[in-house]
Amino acid sequence: MSRPLTIALDAMGGDRGPDMVVAGAAIALERHPELHVILFGDSAVLEPLLARTPKVREKARIVHASVAVAMDDKPSQALRRGRNHSSMWMAIDAVRQGLADVAVSAGNTGALMAMAKVILKTMAGIERPAIAAIWPTLRGESIVLDVGATIGADAGQLVDFAVMGEAMARSLFGLKRPTVGLLNIGVEEIKGVEEVKAAGRILRGAELPIEYAGFVEGDDLGKGTVDVVVTEGFTGNIALKTAEGTARQIGTYLRAAMRRSLLSRIGYVFARGAFDALRDKLDPRTMNGGVFLGLNGVVVKSHGGTDALGFASAIDLAVEMADNDLVAKIARDLDVKHEAMAQYSETTVDAESG
Amino acid sequence: MSRPLTIALDAMGGDRGPDMVVAGAAIALERHPELHVILFGDSAVLEPLLARTPKVREKARIVHASVAVAMDDKPSQALRRGRNHSSMWMAIDAVRQGLADVAVSAGNTGALMAMAKVILKTMAGIERPAIAAIWPTLRGESIVLDVGATIGADAGQLVDFAVMGEAMARSLFGLKRPTVGLLNIGVEEIKGVEEVKAAGRILRGAELPIEYAGFVEGDDLGKGTVDVVVTEGFTGNIALKTAEGTARQIGTYLRAAMRRSLLSRIGYVFARGAFDALRDKLDPRTMNGGVFLGLNGVVVKSHGGTDALGFASAIDLAVEMADNDLVAKIARDLDVKHEAMAQYSETTVDAESG
Repeated sequence: MSRPLTIALDAMGGDRGPDMVVAGAAIALERHPELHVILFGDSAVLEPLLARTPKVREKARIVHASVAVAMDDKPSQALRRGRNHSSMWMAIDAVRQGLADVAVSAGNTGALMAMAKVILKTMAGIERPAIAAIWPTLRGESIVLDVGATIGADAGQLVDFAVMGEAMARSLFGLKRPTVGLLNIGVEEIKGVEEVKAAGRILRGAELPIEYAGFVEGDDLGKGTVDVVVTEGFTGNIALKTAEGTARQIGTYLRAAMRRSLLSRIGYVFARGAFDALRDKLDPRTMNGGVFLGLNGVVVKSHGGTDALGFASAIDLAVEMADNDLVAKIARDLDVKHEAMAQYSETTVDAESG
Repeated sequence: MSRPLTIALDAMGGDRGPDMVVAGAAIALERHPELHVILFGDSAVLEPLLARTPKVREKARIVHASVAVAMDDKPSQALRRGRNHSSMWMAIDAVRQGLADVAVSAGNTGALMAMAKVILKTMAGIERPAIAAIWPTLRGESIVLDVGATIGADAGQLVDFAVMGEAMARSLFGLKRPTVGLLNIGVEEIKGVEEVKAAGRILRGAELPIEYAGFVEGDDLGKGTVDVVVTEGFTGNIALKTAEGTARQIGTYLRAAMRRSLLSRIGYVFARGAFDALRDKLDPRTMNGGVFLGLNGVVVKSHGGTDALGFASAIDLAVEMADNDLVAKIARDLDVKHEAMAQYSETTVDAESG
């Protein structure tokens, strides 16, 4: 970390609640000893938890929140019940006030996004925020967005996603010129959605400082063909969950195969180390966290069902994003995009009228 | 097979061309000795191939086609160049004429669908055909459609897909009441595309003889939560390719893990049988073939890059579909749907006006 960061944790979110969050904070504080942590939640629950976790008590501040957003609250319900007084609201609001650099919650996605939009507002020129996921690939990792913030996106919004995802890839992977692709279904003439095609024309034609690599398909996600894959939220969410489901499915097959016979069990014992390494590689907890992009502040969504280790990964990601001044980077890039688009529109109009 | 079937093969389609098709036909003829096979393609190429494959020569008829549709032909190009005289056209046309029960091609999907629509026409009441894929799941197999025939689908078209996929599941899996789900992204209030929600209302409200199970998400595909998953072609195609890509990705990790150390290599030797079984289970060739639904005839699309074994699987699937009179089943179901929908519209109108 280049400067001491403060992280706001929604201590009441997630299927496993405060225990998991505090245990996750403990792991994160071991990894980042200079981190400041604020835990928002029911102090009657949190105080005794921290009493048992001295490492966290030393470094974390508890701020009492009287309401906890439930995992199955509808966004509108959460906004009504949880405004001002919920742990989720207060964690995000700490970012707005500049009291924290980033907020992390394992609470329900719809409520978190709804509150984040109300509290942080979308950045100038951004109509819709996106959720960016980190996707493990054969080449390392890619960023995929949007994985479920909003359904449908027009060409301009897809270009915004490209700009934001590209900035995140520079921050997270340390790449100078990450490659960006648009998710599509092949290159034949009748194929492809109109919005995706139009976004492709802009990314190719406008003088954006983006390394646009063209269309990619579903199987390019796992290959890591590009560093940033841009799509709208419906398709992105289904692709993400399909990949997670397929990974679990094959894991189940593999475990069954290894229990299949005496020989395979013996083989398993010998290859134990290899299987452990593979399990670690496929462990969804190491890659936990969706980053909300396009808001005036960074919010990281952890998987609701995660454990302490997974929550610590989400904190890692949040630290990385805050440490790299992601929002400032995106704001600068959006300015550049704005100018390039003005130029591009003029050129297009000139070309069409001339 | 309940009666001798005739199958029309586009012998020029696929990345590996006639050799692969003839070798695939040889495997299929071993599995289905009573099958009649017509090979459409360049007789100058096919005659010598069959001379070397007596088992196929005995049972297959060659019909000369002077044109071969290229794998990268655009659909419009293929229709222009390949009308009447291409192997792809002639194979489909044999189905239209009643000379064959089903056509199989490993040629390019866009061209095949374009020709199939022109030659066979969509069934009465069907606006858009769909491509149905067979998806391996933890419970066995499911049918997923549409995986790329058409982009976007309104509620009525999604309901048509449900009717057709359900008929296919009865044919293929021998189920009396296959369950049907609509692919969506969660059950929170702001989520879900309007068309999908509207299709859900129809499937729940109309008196259709369909076991509608509600919305399913991306990870339900691999679980096999329902027997038939309905979605529009863009999302379906991306989900399919994402799953295929993830399976290949994990296969690569697994191979690397097993080569990792001496111990893991020893383990691999012991567990060889288990790995072979797993590889067979994940072998995409055993599950090869997309079925075009909604046309007045059955066309099966094989993966373009498949080998003889994969092509034989596509023929298996074609035999299954023809043997079960899939088109007749779908036609009957569409009649039932038509009546139910008329009833449903009246009820809805009554309810709204009353």
